[in-house]
Amino acid sequence: MIEDYRLDPNLSKIRIVLVETSHPGNIGAIARAMKNMGLSELVLVKPKEFPSQVASARASSASDVLDSARVVGSLDEALEGCKLTFGASARLRKVSWPQLDVRETAELAIKTVEQEQAQVALVFGREDSGLSNAELDKCNYLSHIPSNPTYSSLNISQAVQVFSYECLMATNLKSVHNKEGYRHKLASNDQLEGFYDHLYQALQDVGFLDPNKNARFMRRMRRLFNRAQLDIKEIDILRGILRATQRKLTPSKSSEEK
Amino acid sequence: MIEDYRLDPNLSKIRIVLVETSHPGNIGAIARAMKNMGLSELVLVKPKEFPSQVASARASSASDVLDSARVVGSLDEALEGCKLTFGASARLRKVSWPQLDVRETAELAIKTVEQEQAQVALVFGREDSGLSNAELDKCNYLSHIPSNPTYSSLNISQAVQVFSYECLMATNLKSVHNKEGYRHKLASNDQLEGFYDHLYQALQDVGFLDPNKNARFMRRMRRLFNRAQLDIKEIDILRGILRATQRKLTPSKSSEEK
Repeated sequence: MIEDYRLDPNLSKIRIVLVETSHPGNIGAIARAMKNMGLSELVLVKPKEFPSQVASARASSASDVLDSARVVGSLDEALEGCKLTFGASARLRKVSWPQLDVRETAELAIKTVEQEQAQVALVFGREDSGLSNAELDKCNYLSHIPSNPTYSSLNISQAVQVFSYECLMATNLKSVHNKEGYRHKLASNDQLEGFYDHLYQALQDVGFLDPNKNARFMRRMRRLFNRAQLDIKEIDILRGILRATQRKLTPSKSSEEK
Repeated sequence: MIEDYRLDPNLSKIRIVLVETSHPGNIGAIARAMKNMGLSELVLVKPKEFPSQVASARASSASDVLDSARVVGSLDEALEGCKLTFGASARLRKVSWPQLDVRETAELAIKTVEQEQAQVALVFGREDSGLSNAELDKCNYLSHIPSNPTYSSLNISQAVQVFSYECLMATNLKSVHNKEGYRHKLASNDQLEGFYDHLYQALQDVGFLDPNKNARFMRRMRRLFNRAQLDIKEIDILRGILRATQRKLTPSKSSEEK
């Protein structure tokens, strides 16, 4: 269970954007939180006070993150070059924005960086009032941290810590030496769909599926296997089992295929 | 995907223990981090300064956690009544303590609270030097946060934030209204073993398993399905599929069983 955590280079493509941060201490704590999790790119939109001795003190040995931080005049400028953007926000009940929790956010962010070799941004608003609706409009997703419904507002540096931590954890899922031992590349959406189609056919072949409940049943199967985050080798194996089963049921078809 | 996050009452049985904390600001930030995640029980072993105005200011609206915090004179006293204890520490390569990462820690902590209706403790050491070996000896597990190997030391309040967050996430896994929608109770070890035995038999029946590779292959299947965290309904469904397949292969046996 104790393995080498080698930093995934994809982490360097996760940009943290802070909009109009008031307290320089928070900026320093955020630099440290980022570096602890292997993140390095910090962009500050109109910070109240930066550079700042208070920020440097709180950053501890993450002064390199502060030194390379860029200060810009607008959120548009901060998001330049990013393929995908997530705006941190409380969970909202009645909104048109697509919403993800922090774990889903990190998984999608790392997957996007890896598959498209693109940068993504996580955007954090003001300590007191968060991001405006106009700012959230510039984000592809609204991202929240599950929390106590009666006391849900985290300090901004703690929020960045949790997001950064989940990004590192998301890279570990893909790492070839994670705590499970060797894992192959995660299956693509096409590969997963191919498996679900094959499973659907095989379940009919063995007489398991009730035609009236197919849709609901397959949703359940998808939830189960999506949770397992199948890799390409596992897809091969599962489809191999389905093929073997189908051949055993219809030996003649099997010999035709050979 | 957006569901009610109702706090699981099991969170109230997770005790946070801080040993000889130097900076009262950290104690305040920790109170806030705990309350944000639904934790409430804080025990301080010989804090340098407490109560403290600095702590209260950093706690924001979590003053109730500070007000009910207990100050004690020894770690033994702090751990009284706890069934299971975890000591936060950097990942150590050559030690005899059993080690878990923070996600595994939270899952085991919540599972223990739930199954044994017992309290568990997460213990955090001094800002500069952590926990001593003698203190770690009093812990059942050593727990670490995966991090940048070249800069792994989180601020203590950030570390407590990540542990508390994972505890809340661990309760969500068990909640009946999690983001997947309704889920049943997670399968017990016995139920999982019953499924793996059945799967092993069925894979032989369909002629899939190579006798020389069985052990390694079944380990792979276990990893896959363990990742999915099967619930009791899913175990029923998967075994139903295996039974249907076996019946289809040997129709005579099927009619005998009826």
